[in-house]
Amino acid sequence: MNNKKQEIIKHSTAHILATAVLEMFPEAKFGTGPATEEGFYYDFDLPRTLIPEDLPLLEEKMRAVIKADHSFEKEEISTENATKHFEKANQTYKLEIIKDLQNEGNKNVTIYKTGNFVDLCSGPHIDSTGEINSQSFKLTKISGAYWRANEKNKQMQRIYGVVFENKKELEEYLENQEKAKERDHRKLGKELDLFCFSDLIGPGLPLFTPKGTIIKDELQKHIEEVCRKYGFQKVSAPSLAKVELFEISGHAKKFGDELFHVTSKKEHDFVLKPVQCPHHTQIYASKTRSYRDLPIRYMESDKQYRAEKTGEVGGLSRVYAITVEDGHSFCTANQVKDEIKNMINIIKDFYGALGLWGNHWVSLSVRDYAHPEKYIGDEKDWNQCEKILEEISDEMKLGAKRCEGEAALYGPKLDFMFKDALGKEIQIPTVQIDFATPKRFNLEYTNEKGEKIPPVMVHRAILGSYERFLVLLIEHFAGAFPLWLSPVQVKIIPISEKFEDYAKEVEQKLLENNIRVEMSFESESLGKRIAEAEKQKIPYMLVVGEKECEAKTVAIRKRGEKKQEVLPLEEFAEKIKKEIEGKK
Amino acid sequence: MNNKKQEIIKHSTAHILATAVLEMFPEAKFGTGPATEEGFYYDFDLPRTLIPEDLPLLEEKMRAVIKADHSFEKEEISTENATKHFEKANQTYKLEIIKDLQNEGNKNVTIYKTGNFVDLCSGPHIDSTGEINSQSFKLTKISGAYWRANEKNKQMQRIYGVVFENKKELEEYLENQEKAKERDHRKLGKELDLFCFSDLIGPGLPLFTPKGTIIKDELQKHIEEVCRKYGFQKVSAPSLAKVELFEISGHAKKFGDELFHVTSKKEHDFVLKPVQCPHHTQIYASKTRSYRDLPIRYMESDKQYRAEKTGEVGGLSRVYAITVEDGHSFCTANQVKDEIKNMINIIKDFYGALGLWGNHWVSLSVRDYAHPEKYIGDEKDWNQCEKILEEISDEMKLGAKRCEGEAALYGPKLDFMFKDALGKEIQIPTVQIDFATPKRFNLEYTNEKGEKIPPVMVHRAILGSYERFLVLLIEHFAGAFPLWLSPVQVKIIPISEKFEDYAKEVEQKLLENNIRVEMSFESESLGKRIAEAEKQKIPYMLVVGEKECEAKTVAIRKRGEKKQEVLPLEEFAEKIKKEIEGKK
Repeated sequence: MNNKKQEIIKHSTAHILATAVLEMFPEAKFGTGPATEEGFYYDFDLPRTLIPEDLPLLEEKMRAVIKADHSFEKEEISTENATKHFEKANQTYKLEIIKDLQNEGNKNVTIYKTGNFVDLCSGPHIDSTGEINSQSFKLTKISGAYWRANEKNKQMQRIYGVVFENKKELEEYLENQEKAKERDHRKLGKELDLFCFSDLIGPGLPLFTPKGTIIKDELQKHIEEVCRKYGFQKVSAPSLAKVELFEISGHAKKFGDELFHVTSKKEHDFVLKPVQCPHHTQIYASKTRSYRDLPIRYMESDKQYRAEKTGEVGGLSRVYAITVEDGHSFCTANQVKDEIKNMINIIKDFYGALGLWGNHWVSLSVRDYAHPEKYIGDEKDWNQCEKILEEISDEMKLGAKRCEGEAALYGPKLDFMFKDALGKEIQIPTVQIDFATPKRFNLEYTNEKGEKIPPVMVHRAILGSYERFLVLLIEHFAGAFPLWLSPVQVKIIPISEKFEDYAKEVEQKLLENNIRVEMSFESESLGKRIAEAEKQKIPYMLVVGEKECEAKTVAIRKRGEKKQEVLPLEEFAEKIKKEIEGKK
Repeated sequence: MNNKKQEIIKHSTAHILATAVLEMFPEAKFGTGPATEEGFYYDFDLPRTLIPEDLPLLEEKMRAVIKADHSFEKEEISTENATKHFEKANQTYKLEIIKDLQNEGNKNVTIYKTGNFVDLCSGPHIDSTGEINSQSFKLTKISGAYWRANEKNKQMQRIYGVVFENKKELEEYLENQEKAKERDHRKLGKELDLFCFSDLIGPGLPLFTPKGTIIKDELQKHIEEVCRKYGFQKVSAPSLAKVELFEISGHAKKFGDELFHVTSKKEHDFVLKPVQCPHHTQIYASKTRSYRDLPIRYMESDKQYRAEKTGEVGGLSRVYAITVEDGHSFCTANQVKDEIKNMINIIKDFYGALGLWGNHWVSLSVRDYAHPEKYIGDEKDWNQCEKILEEISDEMKLGAKRCEGEAALYGPKLDFMFKDALGKEIQIPTVQIDFATPKRFNLEYTNEKGEKIPPVMVHRAILGSYERFLVLLIEHFAGAFPLWLSPVQVKIIPISEKFEDYAKEVEQKLLENNIRVEMSFESESLGKRIAEAEKQKIPYMLVVGEKECEAKTVAIRKRGEKKQEVLPLEEFAEKIKKEIEGKK
């Protein structure tokens, strides 16, 4: 089914839903009901709050509408006639839309009739309701939604639904949804005790527990080690700055309402940094630089702040402070290509190790050519940057697809898109060329001829923000993290109290090898303790009893494997140590 | 010379200064001129701005006053007569003070006459100006100062000075000042390229360069490694919170005007955390806890924010965001003593390794008993906590001195004071008992009897804030950091271009051993390159030429030593690696 056809089916099913709602609530007032990426929704102003039990009833009524095979009758009428019609029907929201259309200079509008339901709608639609397979749609959710997404307006009730061409597709979708629910990072984050929230601190402000912090720290150590090999040096910048810094960089305008302002009773006036780049330019600017010093590559993992809408923050996906693993290279024009290639190699290494490289595509994100005012910098520089990225895509066989309007504020970029275990697309790593920022901050270096000229800045993100990357990791691995990232790598389970001394010996041996170990003492049955370790998705369980104690061995249960292996303690320690170092 | 006598001499010299100023500027108006820790100052309202060249002239006039041996004549007069006198002399600042004294109910005031100078002053003073040794004082500095330290008042000119009993003491003082200037962290921070500031970001907001970041990171790795051995687990909390969090903890009231408020156009309303403790209570509170889980020990190195006065921030000593290495233990009442002893052992280990343990004293910082309203918590708990700390001081032979009024908001503490290389006292590590905070946040655990009761919280700081600790390190070591903390551990200097290949071989070998290396290529003379490495206080310099290249050796110059040692490359790598690991 192509996209256009999908959209028509989704939107037509929204009309069928509205027809069913009108039957259930004759006094219903209708908002709008568009198709979405996933399915469709319709917003209603109803005499009572909907309950989940209403959804099957509405589905039943929708099936009746489908069975009745009403045709979608399109009619073009004058705005005056439309106003008369919807006034009579007391459809205040539709009247508001008609007024806006009139103000925009429209003389006529189109309406669609399906059975008793008449909607102000520009279409297109299917021919008749019978075209929908009555076994291939489902109403999925009820939620609140402000009229026209404005918090000052009335809150309406939104019903979400999905629709497919056949029953099998619907079933696959629902199954995938169940899997996704099981993998939801908010659910697993709680079960595996990785992060938490507090009402006294507020949503959008996660606290990482010891286990979550281990994963964050391991990721940071890893990415810094990789980048250090490519010549990146770590720096550390403050979170606050005068707003001037971001006025010069252009971010104050770009982020606008998303900037957090910091004030005090002592008349301080700062902003919390929404990005890291301007701070890094100031470290570059703190010394005189020569072409012999370039490239200078800075990296830093620090929080960046965005005043997201209160209603939109949730879990780790959208938070007020994202901890970004950021990097910038200041280089000569001749070095740009090599710098970018190095960065792409880092991306390849990093995502390859996680098994994500290969199932990906690359976007060459260029300007929205119709709106040059959205960007900073010179036309000439933009063209040159685009050319460089195209050449790199060819030379490195990236097959980058040109995506207009996706560029950064200061230049074009290469964005890398991966697919997680459930097929969800994730856009994280990016490499961006920037001729504009160094000029705005009067950065310079002395070239071979003794002239002072601006360097080029190349921006790169590898894992992006730790918060979003954790979402990816948790949902991709369903909490069963690779060994090197697991907060607890080995759980030692003595069969009974008698073997606790030997268990402690095992623990000591592993701790000496910097392996993260937890002990499960006997307060529950062996079976329960094993089940608990499985639920915690711990990579290795060592069950120790009489045999192991005597032979100085461990009985190993590897996560996801039924078979138990027995190895001498020394040998196991060596084996797991190598496995961790190899990041397998 | 005892403190009281010192103070009298300092304050009397301030009068002698005022006498000299009156002679130079008959229209001078006088503020106040107290003794300070270091010496004395006097504030003047003068017809012109002072220049440094004025100070020797004033010193000359002061010597004349001393030579004239004027007596300090004390007189008690009515406030009315005092008003008449100072009105006639047009001394508006003195009149303001007299008015305040009248308002406080004083009928009389005392004045002191020295030559032509009459001051409103409660004394005491020396008998006559001749008692001051005319070779043992010095005027040190001119600065601006608002009348009564209020920015809304007129800015006066402040002259600082020092005075001692004899010339030798003055010379020692001045010599020490010179040394301190050489070691000043702002000067060395720039010379060694450790941190920088930007006008676009603002003072009080340092940026750490790659070299400064290495020191910060090495410190963090080290302290975390030490604390992990004592059972501390790292956590990670956001910087923002609702103000309610700090209202409950009591910090909102305590910090008052020092709180940074964070707002946005989307009507967010947060504060930047001034301390870490309340956030950690919320991680504790995220799960149900049993006595079997305790003690739970959290640590975190994160920024804490204080809205310091704009005029007071400077260098790394006072900044808007201090990166605090913070730690908290949640434990049962029975565990408190062991927890604190563990923490004191960490302090001993950490400061011992820096050679600072031994030359220290400990303060048992207790309440200001006259002002219980400054603290939170129950009287009974406070008494118990003080008793525990006293016992620990005895058992661990700390010889803690009781210091009233030095307690924390929530409980008494043990503070450790060290002396740096120039004898300056530094107060950083602290251990604090807190029965109050857990109760305020309704924290609890289930005890052996199944009852839910609050845990005790023990707060500890080891290195305190990284910013202030860096000041200590830089000034204590005069920039010659211990090997393990040195941003560059080895500088390789090939005698000429011919030996650059071998130099690279040496570099590679050291990099493989995770040693931080820099290469000095031939663009300057050998002598200049060696001098530069010495100025950068790099621990090891390896000069390589023909002999070294042939024999695969390195000629080693150790920082501060004249003698050069030759070792096989392999052997040197092994040796330095061990030295780094041993943190010598």
